Amino acid sequence: MLYLNCDYNCGAHPAIMKRLEETNFEYTGTYGIDKYSESAKQRIREACGDPDADIFFLIGGTQTNATVIDALLKPWQGAVSAPSGHINVHEAGAIEFTGHKVIALPNHDDGKIRPHELEEVFRAYRADESRDHIVEPELVYLSFPTELGTMYSAQELTAIHNVTKKYNGRLYIDGARLGYALGAEGNDVTLEYLAEHCEAFYIGGTKVGALFGEAIVFPHHGAPEHFFTFIKQHGALLAKGRITGLQFDTLFTDGLYEEIGRQADALAKQIPELFVKYDKGLLAVNSRTNQQFIIIRNSLLPQLSEQVRFEKWGAVDAEHTMCRFVTSWSTTQQDIDDLEKILATIAD
Amino acid sequence: MLYLNCDYNCGAHPAIMKRLEETNFEYTGTYGIDKYSESAKQRIREACGDPDADIFFLIGGTQTNATVIDALLKPWQGAVSAPSGHINVHEAGAIEFTGHKVIALPNHDDGKIRPHELEEVFRAYRADESRDHIVEPELVYLSFPTELGTMYSAQELTAIHNVTKKYNGRLYIDGARLGYALGAEGNDVTLEYLAEHCEAFYIGGTKVGALFGEAIVFPHHGAPEHFFTFIKQHGALLAKGRITGLQFDTLFTDGLYEEIGRQADALAKQIPELFVKYDKGLLAVNSRTNQQFIIIRNSLLPQLSEQVRFEKWGAVDAEHTMCRFVTSWSTTQQDIDDLEKILATIAD
Amino acid sequence: MLYLNCDYNCGAHPAIMKRLEETNFEYTGTYGIDKYSESAKQRIREACGDPDADIFFLIGGTQTNATVIDALLKPWQGAVSAPSGHINVHEAGAIEFTGHKVIALPNHDDGKIRPHELEEVFRAYRADESRDHIVEPELVYLSFPTELGTMYSAQELTAIHNVTKKYNGRLYIDGARLGYALGAEGNDVTLEYLAEHCEAFYIGGTKVGALFGEAIVFPHHGAPEHFFTFIKQHGALLAKGRITGLQFDTLFTDGLYEEIGRQADALAKQIPELFVKYDKGLLAVNSRTNQQFIIIRNSLLPQLSEQVRFEKWGAVDAEHTMCRFVTSWSTTQQDIDDLEKILATIAD
Amino acid sequence: MLYLNCDYNCGAHPAIMKRLEETNFEYTGTYGIDKYSESAKQRIREACGDPDADIFFLIGGTQTNATVIDALLKPWQGAVSAPSGHINVHEAGAIEFTGHKVIALPNHDDGKIRPHELEEVFRAYRADESRDHIVEPELVYLSFPTELGTMYSAQELTAIHNVTKKYNGRLYIDGARLGYALGAEGNDVTLEYLAEHCEAFYIGGTKVGALFGEAIVFPHHGAPEHFFTFIKQHGALLAKGRITGLQFDTLFTDGLYEEIGRQADALAKQIPELFVKYDKGLLAVNSRTNQQFIIIRNSLLPQLSEQVRFEKWGAVDAEHTMCRFVTSWSTTQQDIDDLEKILATIAD
Repeated sequence: MLYLNCDYNCGAHPAIMKRLEETNFEYTGTYGIDKYSESAKQRIREACGDPDADIFFLIGGTQTNATVIDALLKPWQGAVSAPSGHINVHEAGAIEFTGHKVIALPNHDDGKIRPHELEEVFRAYRADESRDHIVEPELVYLSFPTELGTMYSAQELTAIHNVTKKYNGRLYIDGARLGYALGAEGNDVTLEYLAEHCEAFYIGGTKVGALFGEAIVFPHHGAPEHFFTFIKQHGALLAKGRITGLQFDTLFTDGLYEEIGRQADALAKQIPELFVKYDKGLLAVNSRTNQQFIIIRNSLLPQLSEQVRFEKWGAVDAEHTMCRFVTSWSTTQQDIDDLEKILATIAD
Repeated sequence: MLYLNCDYNCGAHPAIMKRLEETNFEYTGTYGIDKYSESAKQRIREACGDPDADIFFLIGGTQTNATVIDALLKPWQGAVSAPSGHINVHEAGAIEFTGHKVIALPNHDDGKIRPHELEEVFRAYRADESRDHIVEPELVYLSFPTELGTMYSAQELTAIHNVTKKYNGRLYIDGARLGYALGAEGNDVTLEYLAEHCEAFYIGGTKVGALFGEAIVFPHHGAPEHFFTFIKQHGALLAKGRITGLQFDTLFTDGLYEEIGRQADALAKQIPELFVKYDKGLLAVNSRTNQQFIIIRNSLLPQLSEQVRFEKWGAVDAEHTMCRFVTSWSTTQQDIDDLEKILATIAD
Repeated sequence: MLYLNCDYNCGAHPAIMKRLEETNFEYTGTYGIDKYSESAKQRIREACGDPDADIFFLIGGTQTNATVIDALLKPWQGAVSAPSGHINVHEAGAIEFTGHKVIALPNHDDGKIRPHELEEVFRAYRADESRDHIVEPELVYLSFPTELGTMYSAQELTAIHNVTKKYNGRLYIDGARLGYALGAEGNDVTLEYLAEHCEAFYIGGTKVGALFGEAIVFPHHGAPEHFFTFIKQHGALLAKGRITGLQFDTLFTDGLYEEIGRQADALAKQIPELFVKYDKGLLAVNSRTNQQFIIIRNSLLPQLSEQVRFEKWGAVDAEHTMCRFVTSWSTTQQDIDDLEKILATIAD
Repeated sequence: MLYLNCDYNCGAHPAIMKRLEETNFEYTGTYGIDKYSESAKQRIREACGDPDADIFFLIGGTQTNATVIDALLKPWQGAVSAPSGHINVHEAGAIEFTGHKVIALPNHDDGKIRPHELEEVFRAYRADESRDHIVEPELVYLSFPTELGTMYSAQELTAIHNVTKKYNGRLYIDGARLGYALGAEGNDVTLEYLAEHCEAFYIGGTKVGALFGEAIVFPHHGAPEHFFTFIKQHGALLAKGRITGLQFDTLFTDGLYEEIGRQADALAKQIPELFVKYDKGLLAVNSRTNQQFIIIRNSLLPQLSEQVRFEKWGAVDAEHTMCRFVTSWSTTQQDIDDLEKILATIAD
């Protein structure tokens, strides 16, 4: 069976496993106060070009979004998001659980925010004479890359940043798959860029080669007051915090984090090409990252499913289904070659 | 430096690291739906003598308490706890964050609940004509062993269970250090016992040899409706859930879990004996588990601190401090022998 | 100055004031346990044709929505609403404050829910293999009349009811202005109808002649368990509860509640007619209730504003504004005649 | 039947009813933006000697406590209270519902806070090296008069204020029955005093002659940011806000508020004297306000209950019960004379 269904179905990058093994018997501080976490923070600060960045390690993406958004927002404020944003659709209401509204923008097939639509939300609030009866749009949430594998250019992000600043809002970027954006062909957004243009963002580890873990960056000493206690209160504090620190220390040594992204993206790119080559599917979304969405004839799905794990994303019409194929740190050229063999042989 | 300050300052038991390594490149299901998690659940069900137990794996103790208690309680209900209960003092208000009151019982130096005091809380609520204006005491929370290393006998737990049942309440046991109770001299409480007498309990992994992880047991198909979604909403769902499953699968193979407890308890027992032998301290709490509380003269603390890590728990009087010493899976007889050498040499 | 800006800018219907005065020196039970509240409940039960209805009196609309929705929903469930629904836009996030998501349907200019769009939300949830990661759509919230003064026919409500039942959901109707629907020309929805087709609805007092107060109806003994304590916990319990009971007792004596609606609707109907007659505006929304939305040339607004209070609802284009005019229990034919004189005299 | 069971079982002071009647047909602004609310605020500012006080009108006590405390506290902070404090025992967990812990001090029979015990809570938090895992005690909540009718002297309040300031905390006073403290014999605490020593306090209307309503005072422009939206989000905003404003405008005209208190206290004082005179009971709590707690032989209770409504507060021993008798704006000397006649005639 060929596994292309997601990027968190295998263990960790071997470099991470090696260091966990090497350090296993050491005694260190707890709750993230230890030399490995400190080293990881230092490496991330360097990668972000921001020696003053406040950095915290959490465990998973939904947890990170809920903890950061709850800490950044005041009780009367909400988070603005694309309707397809992870916080709006796929976190079991974790943001609302903390008491905050997710304010959805108009929908677009690429899952991206449009600056002028964002501006309209900010403007309308300020123009509304009854705004004291309304949730204030304050935080702008976006995923980079998006839930559909698409990317923002630096120019696009700057436009969103500018609108946000114009209305004294804040920008928070969900980087669950950030490595796959950083490593993508044509990407011009860097960690330094994010540190200059966001109030907060997180560098995803779970989906980019770690056992688990997300690194939150608050540039320029921007961490919310008492953020450590927020982490504890949200149940997000790891006792043996060094385990997360050590993983990020490894990912940010010798450029491993971006290397994982680059390799997975390059492998992913071949997937739609193969479907087209063998006339077994069409590109659905123009993605340059590790998630590829392909429209496949339903009649092909049973044979394909016998040999490949992938995700059915939804019906396109009565005869076609949009399917998701995902690569990760563990995908190899051999896997892609195997996929080619399969595509060459299946038939309606 | 000798580390006796806590039981989560080292990595994981080597048997766990070995299996993580062995399985690292396998592809499995996610979010805890995988063969290792299933195997771990099966082993725990067997250990509990309850083939119908619902079992879930979470990451940390505060998270587990908040998620379980929020799922078990109705909005108008609260959790009854000893004042020294972890949920009442050391979880940054995580229970209140979910909207529930912690109802504290009278205080006792051993950190334990007294059945008659618990009964009084239940009784008073029912007797109060204005009880509709009051939080209903429903869930009884207790830690086994307690935060002070003390233990309940089966007889004591049965008395608490009986009071709880008499008032249609439910019993939830925080087993963050359960292994150290199961392995303790004179303990007569088993996993089977817990499965028969609790509505829920958790088997702590973080402090008993795992990298992280807690196994929640809801005996007799007793999981709250939609508990998986509760886990997600609380940010407690691990994407690579098999990592937790695999750890518990290891801990519940060949009795490792209890063995870790037994060994650490046996080493811990020597600590107060050494302090007494060398006239360097007195036993403060009668603990048979891996936490030992010792009253030490303040004049000895600087020398001791130079060679041993331990925790100052609080002033006893102007000249004495209560200190905590903790053993774990990684503590060895050599460590205890080293402690003896240190105690033999330090002086006021 | 002529006041047509809202239906809660004056005192209470004189019949209410009279009874408050008459009973002022009596001693009664508190918190809504008194003879007047009991009598009011009995009258409402009769009006609803449901002798088993559970009835509670709360103070305001946002409070009622938040308390009822929080009590009806489980933690993992959300409320489905039109995007223009009061809970989605004008309650400062009160629903999210209680931890629940408002799931917005597609937008329509009449502010109404379409059964097939509602069905799609229910269907999609059930069809989604990852639905355990998602908020469950359970409660259907709609306002009758809507925030735009429009109404559902019994047939339309039945279609919504049927979809809701098909998916085991529940229907909750916000009747902040229910009296103005009941009294509207062509209305075929009755209180009996609501009691047969909803799990809960509230009969608005604040906007229909009371000083304050909303009567929640849970047909057929359908009140959520411990609902009294929910009221208390939400800060919605009135100590001198009889004051609300007495107001509803008055409103439901001799058909006053519907009479207030009927009269205000009849007066409201004349407003767009006058605007058209004097060529000063166009009907924007086809409303038969006490709220009328009229598109007015901006050049007329200054003169009109000098003599009439109304609400500017939003720009239609560069030269026109949609404005809201509202009648209530206190509006008289003289007021409408005065409006005619004003419209006859103002000019661009 | 003689009603001495509580101070919210009758209507409103006639002066309030008169003004509601007089102004009933006027049109004004809504949500508390109207001339009557403005006038009331001005009068309260004058009574407090603080022209800069921010003032808001809410509806009930539990609602006011929850809204103010939630707005004043940060998510990681809690409110310190006497164990008998209303927020700790009688508000159905409304504070915890907003996510905050109530931190209970040691218990005292008079229901009052001791400054040195308060200081110990503040001190211990700061001294605790693991305080980042703990709820921060920040707000000090006390009731004046207390739930037991007892009072603080200015000197006692100053000591509490000083401890609170020493640790950068804030002081919030629940004045549900404030009028009965202001009017009490020997009281030396004034509104001016409160405005100088509290960050917030509320002046209770519900229990001091209004139909409902509590006036929150934030001295020196001290209102929390966006407090209006907090009110809305908590469901505490009254549409016809002028009704509350008008009531406080009346209560603060010609000293009515204190006069109600003074008169009720003077009548209340006679109650224990009568019980002693006729040997029918003993004073249980030394109260100078409108609540009197008397220990009565159980054998007398049936006869007494036939003629007087009062509250049984709890068993003192097998033969005696502590009972509460309460006066209010509506109690008259005739009522007290009637009580005397009853006490003179009943017998064991």
